[in-house]
Amino acid sequence: MKKEDRNIYIGNTDADQAKRMYYEKLYNEFEYERIPIDQGLGRVTYEAIYAKVSSPHYNAAAMDGILVKSQDTEGASVANPKILEQGKDFIYINTGNPITEPYDSVIMIEDVIEIGEGKVKILNATHPWQHIRPIGEDIVATEMIIPSRHKIRPIDIGALITGGIQEIKVYKKPRVGIIPTGTEIIDDINSLTVGKILDSNSRVFEGLITEYGGLPNRYNPIEDEYDLLKSAILKGINENEILLVNAGSSAGTKDFTMRIIKELGEVVVHGVALKPGKPTILGIIEGKPVIGIPGYPVSSYLVFDTFVKPLILKYAGMPEEKDPIVKAFVSKRIVSSLKNKELVRVSLGYVNNRLIATPIPGGAGVIMSLVKADGIAIIPQNIEGVEAGETVDVKLLKPLDNVKDTLVSIGSHDLIMDIVGDMMPLTSGHVGSMGGILAMKRGDCLVSPIHLLDTETGEYNISYIKKYFPGNKMAIIKGVKRLQGFIVEKENKKAVKDFVDLKRKDIVFVNRQRGSGTRILLDYYLNKNNIDSGDIKGYNREMTTHMAVATAVKTGSATTGLGIYSAAKALELEFVSVGYEDYDFLVTQESLEDDRVKEFIEIIKSHRFKERILSLGGYELEGIGEVILV
Amino acid sequence: MKKEDRNIYIGNTDADQAKRMYYEKLYNEFEYERIPIDQGLGRVTYEAIYAKVSSPHYNAAAMDGILVKSQDTEGASVANPKILEQGKDFIYINTGNPITEPYDSVIMIEDVIEIGEGKVKILNATHPWQHIRPIGEDIVATEMIIPSRHKIRPIDIGALITGGIQEIKVYKKPRVGIIPTGTEIIDDINSLTVGKILDSNSRVFEGLITEYGGLPNRYNPIEDEYDLLKSAILKGINENEILLVNAGSSAGTKDFTMRIIKELGEVVVHGVALKPGKPTILGIIEGKPVIGIPGYPVSSYLVFDTFVKPLILKYAGMPEEKDPIVKAFVSKRIVSSLKNKELVRVSLGYVNNRLIATPIPGGAGVIMSLVKADGIAIIPQNIEGVEAGETVDVKLLKPLDNVKDTLVSIGSHDLIMDIVGDMMPLTSGHVGSMGGILAMKRGDCLVSPIHLLDTETGEYNISYIKKYFPGNKMAIIKGVKRLQGFIVEKENKKAVKDFVDLKRKDIVFVNRQRGSGTRILLDYYLNKNNIDSGDIKGYNREMTTHMAVATAVKTGSATTGLGIYSAAKALELEFVSVGYEDYDFLVTQESLEDDRVKEFIEIIKSHRFKERILSLGGYELEGIGEVILV
Repeated sequence: MKKEDRNIYIGNTDADQAKRMYYEKLYNEFEYERIPIDQGLGRVTYEAIYAKVSSPHYNAAAMDGILVKSQDTEGASVANPKILEQGKDFIYINTGNPITEPYDSVIMIEDVIEIGEGKVKILNATHPWQHIRPIGEDIVATEMIIPSRHKIRPIDIGALITGGIQEIKVYKKPRVGIIPTGTEIIDDINSLTVGKILDSNSRVFEGLITEYGGLPNRYNPIEDEYDLLKSAILKGINENEILLVNAGSSAGTKDFTMRIIKELGEVVVHGVALKPGKPTILGIIEGKPVIGIPGYPVSSYLVFDTFVKPLILKYAGMPEEKDPIVKAFVSKRIVSSLKNKELVRVSLGYVNNRLIATPIPGGAGVIMSLVKADGIAIIPQNIEGVEAGETVDVKLLKPLDNVKDTLVSIGSHDLIMDIVGDMMPLTSGHVGSMGGILAMKRGDCLVSPIHLLDTETGEYNISYIKKYFPGNKMAIIKGVKRLQGFIVEKENKKAVKDFVDLKRKDIVFVNRQRGSGTRILLDYYLNKNNIDSGDIKGYNREMTTHMAVATAVKTGSATTGLGIYSAAKALELEFVSVGYEDYDFLVTQESLEDDRVKEFIEIIKSHRFKERILSLGGYELEGIGEVILV
Repeated sequence: MKKEDRNIYIGNTDADQAKRMYYEKLYNEFEYERIPIDQGLGRVTYEAIYAKVSSPHYNAAAMDGILVKSQDTEGASVANPKILEQGKDFIYINTGNPITEPYDSVIMIEDVIEIGEGKVKILNATHPWQHIRPIGEDIVATEMIIPSRHKIRPIDIGALITGGIQEIKVYKKPRVGIIPTGTEIIDDINSLTVGKILDSNSRVFEGLITEYGGLPNRYNPIEDEYDLLKSAILKGINENEILLVNAGSSAGTKDFTMRIIKELGEVVVHGVALKPGKPTILGIIEGKPVIGIPGYPVSSYLVFDTFVKPLILKYAGMPEEKDPIVKAFVSKRIVSSLKNKELVRVSLGYVNNRLIATPIPGGAGVIMSLVKADGIAIIPQNIEGVEAGETVDVKLLKPLDNVKDTLVSIGSHDLIMDIVGDMMPLTSGHVGSMGGILAMKRGDCLVSPIHLLDTETGEYNISYIKKYFPGNKMAIIKGVKRLQGFIVEKENKKAVKDFVDLKRKDIVFVNRQRGSGTRILLDYYLNKNNIDSGDIKGYNREMTTHMAVATAVKTGSATTGLGIYSAAKALELEFVSVGYEDYDFLVTQESLEDDRVKEFIEIIKSHRFKERILSLGGYELEGIGEVILV
C-alpha cells in the first residue's frame, strides 16, 4: 500500500516518562484470592499473616533425657551425687514430649548414669525450665509470621503451618492475554512456506509472564484484518487483566492496532525513544492496559521487559525489581543515535579482572543474539555512542558468577567453537583472525582463534604474532588443521574447480569479511593466480561465518564461496578442497595459569572432544592442545 | 526407654568429606524424557539442540518500503533523481515479505517520494541485498541453538521454535520421596492436642524440591514403629529416585531409620560435624540415596540444603550452585564448638557502608529464626567462635540489593516494630534498650528503639544519650508513649494491683532480661518501694520480648509480668496500668540523611501507620516522627 495509507507519524516519548505517564493512568487496586497453604509456594501475600496457634503449643522437652523436679537435684555434685528413682523422682522423656506436673526440668541422657533397678545417678544440679521449650518459644499466637507483599518461600510455608495457618490471602495472578497478529504468522511447522513465519514471540511472552507471576492466555494468531483484530481485542479485554498485541504497532500497511485502541479506549503513548522498540503502543481500554508490541523478536523481548514486566509484577503484588546493573568496558565502538536510548545485546567476560562487554552483531530480527547475550548495554539518549575502552552500564541477563567462569574467545569462527561451548562456559565473538589479534592486543579476550597465512613463508600464525606482539610473552595452543575449499551446490553442476573459475560470468561468489583468515587466504591465491578481484561477481558481498557462506550457496544466492569442509557437510553441500590450514589459539603466557584456559586445554585434548570433532569431517587433530611459546 | 536402648554412638564426619564420600558411591547416569517445546520452560537440556530450519527460511524484506532492481538505481542523486514505475520497476513491500525475482534490493518507505500515477522518485542509489534479511541471517539449519545441561529460558523457547524444534530431550525430574515419621506428627490442625506436632518439615521439603527441579512425593506420616517404617522405606525406594526420612535420625528411643537402612542397604555416614544437623544419616538402598534428616525445623532445613539440594540438582542435570557468600562484620560474639562446623542464622544490614551480621537468637526448634534470617553465617570447624567486630562468611538467603534497602534496628522490642516491618524492609534485633545503645555505639545499627527511665529526673532517654554519646551528634526521632503495667490472667483472679503484691507467696513473676527498659522500670519501682528482688519468686526467669512474658502468663507458668498493654491485649489478657513511658528512636544526626531513615520517619508519621498503632491499644502518638537533636 502507498505511503499515505501508513501511520508513520509516531512520537518519540522518553521511555521512562512514557512508563510513568502510562502507569499513573492505570487502576491501582489489585485482586486477591484465598488458597490453601500447601499451594502457597511462590505466591505473594495480600496482607500480613498472623499466627493462630503458638509453637510449641505446650511446654516440651528440648532434649532426650529424664524429666525431674529441679528441687530434688539441689546440691548434686561429683562428690555428692543424687540418686533418683524412676516413676517417683523421674521419668524418661524424648525430645518434643510434653512436660507433666510435678516435673519442671530435663536432664540430658548423656548426663544420666544408670545404676540399675530403675535408678539413676546425677552429678549436677539442674534448674527449673532447663532443656524445656516453653509455649510460644518459636511462635506466639497473634505474632506476625510474614508481612504483606511477601513472596512465599518453602520455609515460610513451614512457619505458617506451624503457626496454625491453613488458608492464605494472596494476590490473584493477573491473566495476561497475548494476541499474535499478522497474516504471515503460523503455528504449525508443516505450513512453513515462503512468506510464512512461525510464531515464537508469543511463546516467549508465555514463559516470561509465568516467570513474573502472571497467567499467560495466548490466543490463536489473527490475520491482518481490521474486523478480526477488533473483535479479538474486545474478547481479550474481557478475559484478561492485561492485553498484549503483537505485532502491528508500527507503520506497516496493515497495522490496525493503534486505530482500534483509539476507537475503543485511549492511546497514552505511541512511539518511544527506545531502540529497538520505537513503535510501542501503550493504550488503555476499559481501564485495562493494552500494549502494542513490535514484531521483531529482539524488539518484542525488550519492549516486554521495559513496559510489561513491571506491570505484571505490580498486579502480582511484587515490588518492581531493580535491574542488576554492572559497569563494563566496551571492547568495540557502539554507535547510537542522539534520538533514542539504545539497548545493545552484549557478551560479557572477565579478562585480567576487567569486565569486558562485546556487542553481539545482528539486527532486531536476530533472536540468537538474545540467546547468546550475557547482558544488555544501555546507551542513554543524547549520547552519540560509546568508544572502545569506555565503560557502559550493562543490565545482567546471567548471574555475574557465571560470567566469571566463562572463557572469553574473540577471533576467527569455526564450528568446533560450538562444541567447546557445549563442554564449558564460553562466549565466542566472531570477528575474523585479524579482529582477534586486535582484541587480544586490547586485552579484551583470553583466547583468540586465528588462522593467518604468512604469504611469504606459507607458515601459519607465528609470524603474525611476532609482528603484532613485539616483546610480549605470547603462546599458541595448537588447534586443528582444517580443510578449506570451495563450497558448491550438490553435484557441483557449475563445475567450480579452482580460483580461475571465479572470473567466469556464470559464477556468483560470496565472500568473507575483511580481516578474516579465509579472506586473506582467498586474496593470497588470487594474487598468486594474477586474478583481479574486480573481475569476480559477488567479491564485495561479505559474510561473517562459514555457515553464512554455506547458506548463501545452499539457497542459491551464490554459486560458491571459500570455506571449511564441516560447513559444507553440515548443509549437505559439495566441497572442492584447496588445502589444510592451521586454526590455532593465541593466548598470553600469563593466561596459561588462568583456570578457564587450563580447562579449555584439558577439554580440547579430551577423547570425547576429539571424537566429536572428527565426526564433523575435514579436521586433523595431531598435536591439539600442545602449547608453543612465542 | 533406657540409655542402652538408644543408638547414641554416632560419628562426627566432616560435612564436606561426608558429601564427597556419599556422592561418589551414587549412580551417575540420569534419566531423560522427550517433551513438546511449549512445556520446556525451566527444564534442563539433556543434549545440545541443533536447528532444523534456518531463519529466515527465505530472503525477506527487513524494512517497509519498495522492492527494486538495484541496477535501475545506479547513479541516482538529488541532482539526478530516478523515476520508477510500480509493477514494472518496483513493488511495495512490508517487513517480512519475501524477495521475488527479478528484484534484489529494498528502499525504505521514508526515502521514497511518491509523485502520483504509480510513480515514485528516489534520490539515492541502492545496492544488492540492501535491507534484505538473507536466509539464515538469524539461525542456520544445523547450528547449535543451546548447549546441553542448559536450563531453558523463555527466550530459548523462542529461538528453538524459530529453529524448527518441536520436541526436546530434557533431564527427567527426579522424584523425591518424603516420609515424615514420629508418633507425635499429625497433618490435621483439628487433632492438635498436647504432645502432637503439626508436620511442617515435609511441606518445606516439597517447596524446596520443586524449586530445585525435582518432583516432591510426600507420604502420610508414619508412626514410630519398626515394621511400619520398614515397609514405608521399601515402598519409597521403589517409587522414587531419592528418599528422605524425617526425623528419627538421632539417638531417640524410637529412631529406627539407621537400623532399617543398614538392613536394606548401606549406611555411608551417620553423624556429621555440623551444627545443627549432627545426626544426619546418608544411606544407599538399591543404588538410591536415602537420607535421614533430623527433626528440628532449622536442622532439617540446613541438612536438606547441605546434602539434598546438590543431589536434586545433579539428578535434574544442573551444575551445583555456588553459594552466594559475602563477608560481614559480626555485631555480637558467636560462640561455637571446635568439634563442628556451625551454621548460624543472621540478619544482615548495611550501616555506614559496612555489612553487619547479627546472630538471631533461638535454638534449632525456632523456625521463625529462619524466616527472619537474611543469611547463614558459617563458622568453620576448629574455631572456637567469632568475636564482635570480626568478619565471617555469610551465605545469602536474600539478594544483597534487598539487604541494602533494609533499615537496621537494634534495641528494645515493641509490637509497633512488626508494623513498621510490614510497611518497609526492616530487620529488627531485640536486645533491650541498653543493648540498643551499645549496638549504636559500635555502629551496628541505624536506629535504636529505647525507653530508658532516668530514675533521678523521671525523664526518658535524653540523659542516657548524653551519658553514652558524649561529643557525638545524636538525635531522637520521637516514637510513642506506651502503657506499661502488670499483665495478668483474665479477671485477674489473684488480684495483682501493685509492686508490693509481687512479694506474695502465691504469685509467680516472669521477668525481662537485664538491660531492657522494662527491667530498669521494674527495678526503679522495687527500689522506690524498698522491695528486695530476692523476695520475688521468678525474678530470675528472663524473657526477651513482651509477647514472651504475656505468653508465660497466658499459659499459667507465671502469674504476672511487667509489660506493655498491646501484648496483654493481643493474647486477651487483663492489664493493670503502671504508667506511660517514652519509646523513642535513637539515631545519629548524620543518618537522618539516609534514605532508609527518611522513609522510616515518613512511615511513622503516616495516617495509615497511626491508624494501625491505635488499633493495638495502649499507645499515644502525639509528636510521633518529630526529630530532636541531642
